[in-house]
Amino acid sequence: MTVPDDAGPPASPAFSLAVDAMGGDHAPDVVLDGLELAAERHPHARFLLVGDEARLGALLARRKRAAKACSVRHAPEAISGDMKPTAALRVRGSSMRVAIDAVAAGEAAGIVSAGNTGALMALAKIVVKTLPEIDRPALAAIGPSARGDVVMLDLGANVQCDARNLVEFAVMGDAFARSVLGLTKPTIGLLNVGSEELKGDERVRQAADTLRDSLFGENFRGFVEGHDIAAGTVDVIVTDGFTGNVALKTGEGALKLMRDLLRQVFTSSIPARVGYLLARPALDRLREWMDPRRYNGAVLIGLNGVVVKSHGGTDALGFAHAVDVAMDMVTHRFNERIREGLVRLSQAAPRLTDAPG
Amino acid sequence: MTVPDDAGPPASPAFSLAVDAMGGDHAPDVVLDGLELAAERHPHARFLLVGDEARLGALLARRKRAAKACSVRHAPEAISGDMKPTAALRVRGSSMRVAIDAVAAGEAAGIVSAGNTGALMALAKIVVKTLPEIDRPALAAIGPSARGDVVMLDLGANVQCDARNLVEFAVMGDAFARSVLGLTKPTIGLLNVGSEELKGDERVRQAADTLRDSLFGENFRGFVEGHDIAAGTVDVIVTDGFTGNVALKTGEGALKLMRDLLRQVFTSSIPARVGYLLARPALDRLREWMDPRRYNGAVLIGLNGVVVKSHGGTDALGFAHAVDVAMDMVTHRFNERIREGLVRLSQAAPRLTDAPG
Repeated sequence: MTVPDDAGPPASPAFSLAVDAMGGDHAPDVVLDGLELAAERHPHARFLLVGDEARLGALLARRKRAAKACSVRHAPEAISGDMKPTAALRVRGSSMRVAIDAVAAGEAAGIVSAGNTGALMALAKIVVKTLPEIDRPALAAIGPSARGDVVMLDLGANVQCDARNLVEFAVMGDAFARSVLGLTKPTIGLLNVGSEELKGDERVRQAADTLRDSLFGENFRGFVEGHDIAAGTVDVIVTDGFTGNVALKTGEGALKLMRDLLRQVFTSSIPARVGYLLARPALDRLREWMDPRRYNGAVLIGLNGVVVKSHGGTDALGFAHAVDVAMDMVTHRFNERIREGLVRLSQAAPRLTDAPG
Repeated sequence: MTVPDDAGPPASPAFSLAVDAMGGDHAPDVVLDGLELAAERHPHARFLLVGDEARLGALLARRKRAAKACSVRHAPEAISGDMKPTAALRVRGSSMRVAIDAVAAGEAAGIVSAGNTGALMALAKIVVKTLPEIDRPALAAIGPSARGDVVMLDLGANVQCDARNLVEFAVMGDAFARSVLGLTKPTIGLLNVGSEELKGDERVRQAADTLRDSLFGENFRGFVEGHDIAAGTVDVIVTDGFTGNVALKTGEGALKLMRDLLRQVFTSSIPARVGYLLARPALDRLREWMDPRRYNGAVLIGLNGVVVKSHGGTDALGFAHAVDVAMDMVTHRFNERIREGLVRLSQAAPRLTDAPG
């Protein structure tokens, strides 16, 4: 693995982000409403809005800020939510594809889409391409914990991972936490079945050795367990895509169960209803704090551009949050940070990084 | 793999269960209090109580029901919570070891211990031994879901598993749900990163093919995802020990976070405190329903005897629940059900079962 010495920041692209206007359950309306919010939050951002030109023109006419921030590019087709990635790859005129092409061509620094996840991941990997120094891209997201926001990766891009992949995920997760959470020294933990050094399989122990010995110093906190995710023991949780996907959905499922049960509790009797009303301001703060829209925007990292997937069913606020994540990554030179991390990694652990390629 | 034709129920052991009286944070008092409750619930049960004879005699003198149900066997030593399994194996006079020896000798049908988990698993595997038809024992437990109790395994006995192990876990999980949850036709799901047939790695796809084609018929519901655990989509969740351990602890962590936040909500203001009091009966029902003591008792299954691990910090009620689980397994011929399942498996999928051994 080599990182060229002259790897400076690339020429500034014309657009901050390309936006797939036709992806998601309520596209393009929710996308445009989200951009109206995003344009206010990021006054210097320029968006390349890709989709049905006639519809987008009509919608922009009623959204002043978005209209000012966006240039429209026509794409005659849209990728449906149930289309297989292999089929999606063949639709060259889709809004998702045209937006991704703009990233690959260097016109836009990144893309945000609320469309088909599998299609977005496949298209991004093939068209935008993986960073030369990275073996495999990973899916990352932010979630709430008792001690602040936590980054977790991989969430399902790679169901099988080796030690090298896990180390690269740590480098990318570190860069992500710096760029998006604004942390100067994120702490990192490797998910395992116990916190003792001898626990787990060869793969996690080898990755832990590399991370412990050299790369992150004391910011690598060793092994963490499932309960450390919600406890917020570390800022970045590193794991393989199988475990990460299951853990993410298990945690979400447990929180949903609790919300459903609380709804039952507070409608179970007249006194309980009154009790709800009395506790409501505090319960509303709790709901806001855990609001999934605040955590909208899963990121496929390790590519030659920023790729953010918004939840397909989110609303304007949620979509604007996904744009925030993408803008943070673009503004804070996310990929440069990854490159810097990889240089440190190659100096610290040349054997591991030279191995598989 | 062969299952002998003459494999009938074994000769009835003298004791229903051997009980490690010295294991756990509050042993032996909590163990004895738990047995006092258990003796009322299981009037025909006989317990072999293993530990410091003098202390146990004094405690039994004040617990009439337990005194009637128990015979005491002296063991001069106890295994501490932080002892390594390899060290624990060498302490032949420990209460845990003497209790396990009684199971191996056929004196007791099973053991319950609140002591050192690693030591119990290692001792049980080596002394009680794995069923001849089973490749590897698994750790299983019951948890709450939106649609009733759910069995999950493996929870960490095997960090690496092949397709055959997963199929055996399904057979054992099915037998466990029949014996302990009293279900006649438990539904089974294989944990994966998506519910489509092509998702996941070779291992889970191969296990799913075997389970789908032949063994459980329509009771095998294919792949389930992390959120299906709390949703209760199926009765039995099958997964490898790495994923299962992480999922269990992630779900527990999410619920704990929610409980802690609710405590903050209901103490955040005077109206919120009053609201809590008004909603309290319903909130108490919710707390009871999720009470971890109700789900106490993880089970190491696939051995020549019933091995139940109680949480080390539980109270008398929790310990009595662990005894309930063990008694259900003994009474409902748990290992016979596993044998029956394995016979069906060997008829249905001889190739897979003949493979690794």
